[in-house]
Amino acid sequence: MTAIERETQYFKVSLEQAVENLKQREPQKLYDPVVYTLQMGGKRIRPVLLLLAHAIYSENREPALPAALAIEIFHNFTLLHDDMMDNAAKRRSNNTVHIQYSNNTAILSGDAMSILAYEYLTKAQCRSYTKVIELFTKTALEICEGQQFDMDFETRTDITIPQYLEMIRLKTAVLLGCSMKMGALIAEAPENEAQALYDFGINVGMAFQLQDDYLDSFGDEKTFGKAIGGDIVANKKTFMLLKALEVAPPHTKSEIQVWLEKPTFDRNEKIKAIKQIYTQLEIPNAAKDLMNNYYQTALKAIDQINSNRIQAFKDLAALLLEREV
Amino acid sequence: MTAIERETQYFKVSLEQAVENLKQREPQKLYDPVVYTLQMGGKRIRPVLLLLAHAIYSENREPALPAALAIEIFHNFTLLHDDMMDNAAKRRSNNTVHIQYSNNTAILSGDAMSILAYEYLTKAQCRSYTKVIELFTKTALEICEGQQFDMDFETRTDITIPQYLEMIRLKTAVLLGCSMKMGALIAEAPENEAQALYDFGINVGMAFQLQDDYLDSFGDEKTFGKAIGGDIVANKKTFMLLKALEVAPPHTKSEIQVWLEKPTFDRNEKIKAIKQIYTQLEIPNAAKDLMNNYYQTALKAIDQINSNRIQAFKDLAALLLEREV
Repeated sequence: MTAIERETQYFKVSLEQAVENLKQREPQKLYDPVVYTLQMGGKRIRPVLLLLAHAIYSENREPALPAALAIEIFHNFTLLHDDMMDNAAKRRSNNTVHIQYSNNTAILSGDAMSILAYEYLTKAQCRSYTKVIELFTKTALEICEGQQFDMDFETRTDITIPQYLEMIRLKTAVLLGCSMKMGALIAEAPENEAQALYDFGINVGMAFQLQDDYLDSFGDEKTFGKAIGGDIVANKKTFMLLKALEVAPPHTKSEIQVWLEKPTFDRNEKIKAIKQIYTQLEIPNAAKDLMNNYYQTALKAIDQINSNRIQAFKDLAALLLEREV
Repeated sequence: MTAIERETQYFKVSLEQAVENLKQREPQKLYDPVVYTLQMGGKRIRPVLLLLAHAIYSENREPALPAALAIEIFHNFTLLHDDMMDNAAKRRSNNTVHIQYSNNTAILSGDAMSILAYEYLTKAQCRSYTKVIELFTKTALEICEGQQFDMDFETRTDITIPQYLEMIRLKTAVLLGCSMKMGALIAEAPENEAQALYDFGINVGMAFQLQDDYLDSFGDEKTFGKAIGGDIVANKKTFMLLKALEVAPPHTKSEIQVWLEKPTFDRNEKIKAIKQIYTQLEIPNAAKDLMNNYYQTALKAIDQINSNRIQAFKDLAALLLEREV
């Protein structure tokens, strides 16, 4: 069993126990949707990263567990409220909480989850307690900011690539960085190594989101897990689209604009046309290059740490980032 | 100038400064509604209680200020999300956030406010930091639980008076208790005195909510600040109604039930009829007795503290609880 598998299994068992405790709490209508959300599954990447980072410095996982649970609960809270804001009906093949229960339940149970994350975090008693709470709070606020930028970008037409990258840093990458650094902080790792782990998480997160953007257009429906072309249909200003608009010659740019402004269209026709333009402009290569840049930066960061346990992070990054790219 | 006025003024000036800082943050669409909410006004009772509790033990207010801001921001966050859940269009004569902006803005800016509260709290660096964070987190979760019970009670017909009192304890009273205790903790007050201050806050909070229930039926529209009879029209299961159902002889109980089940009715007629029943059953006296009980318990709690500064709490309780009862 690899270190990743071991920590994943340990976390999943621990999460089940936490869920059993939550089932006992009152009022049930507040905690049921929390249990429902946490039982939807998922790869549990963030808590596993936290536990692996902690394991570089400590054999005893226990002090890191509450923080790992906190991170996973907070992540699921953001999904819950984001799904409501995005009007999404499904999450991992299940009804989203506002569909399964109600809007009010989704609001309030989500609120409770964000506080529950702090409840778990306060159990992470360690010398770096203050730093842990501060890091988490900073990250949580950044995630809200990232979500707001993401919503703002929907109606704006002047987004630059750096602005887009900053948005995905906030919305996606910082929680990976935070997970890594938090594991290190709890184990009282040296400050520069905690920072190196944070940088690894950020860069893997950036590469992961760019891969997601790429796969949304060029992935295989079966392995990607959702319909291909969703971003194209919705005119989502991902790296793919922004780069295409940047590098396209005038007539191709006009062609893209026409598709962006069409009020009605055949879904498959639009996807096919935009993908052809992307291919012609070599956007897939540009995306892969940028992803690879982040990937290499991540490896450089982790290589600053002198431990044979960093191999697990390299394995995890490879696992996350080589789905089919 | 009384101690209450002094702390209120100090807090209001400090809040304005905090609001100025929030105005500088990006994305504006996330922080604008936060600023809007915090500028709606209000008596700022909770932070003033915190500052007054702190002032029993310390001449220097500064260490308590971040916590006072945290409490006020969190309180306003709960109002923001509650207004959305209750579909309320107005708050202190202003549009509520989901009306003024949008539902998504109300969700996300509310989320950000609850995290912002923690951001301020982490600035309250003191020896009792861990206890402060734990107390706040416990209280925040209790408030979510209270709100859920309140929503559950709308559709239930089997609510007992103890269940109602527990609901208002969670939804309203604990934040007053928390404010008092937090001020004491930051000033490193003795544990038993911190607890006495907490008990004072809880009991004043209970009395205050019961007064609100009473005034909703028997108050003067001008001083109460909203239309009289809202609870009666909405069949809200307040202490007034629950007590009436408990003590009413069978035929009066049937009379109440008829009003509760009428699908359409003249608003003023219903209010008049139910108020007549309340008066006839001496519910106003029962409410005043219970309020007075909590008030006396609050005074007993605060009298455990040997300081001439406790007079401010007695004054504040009198101010809050003698509006016209």
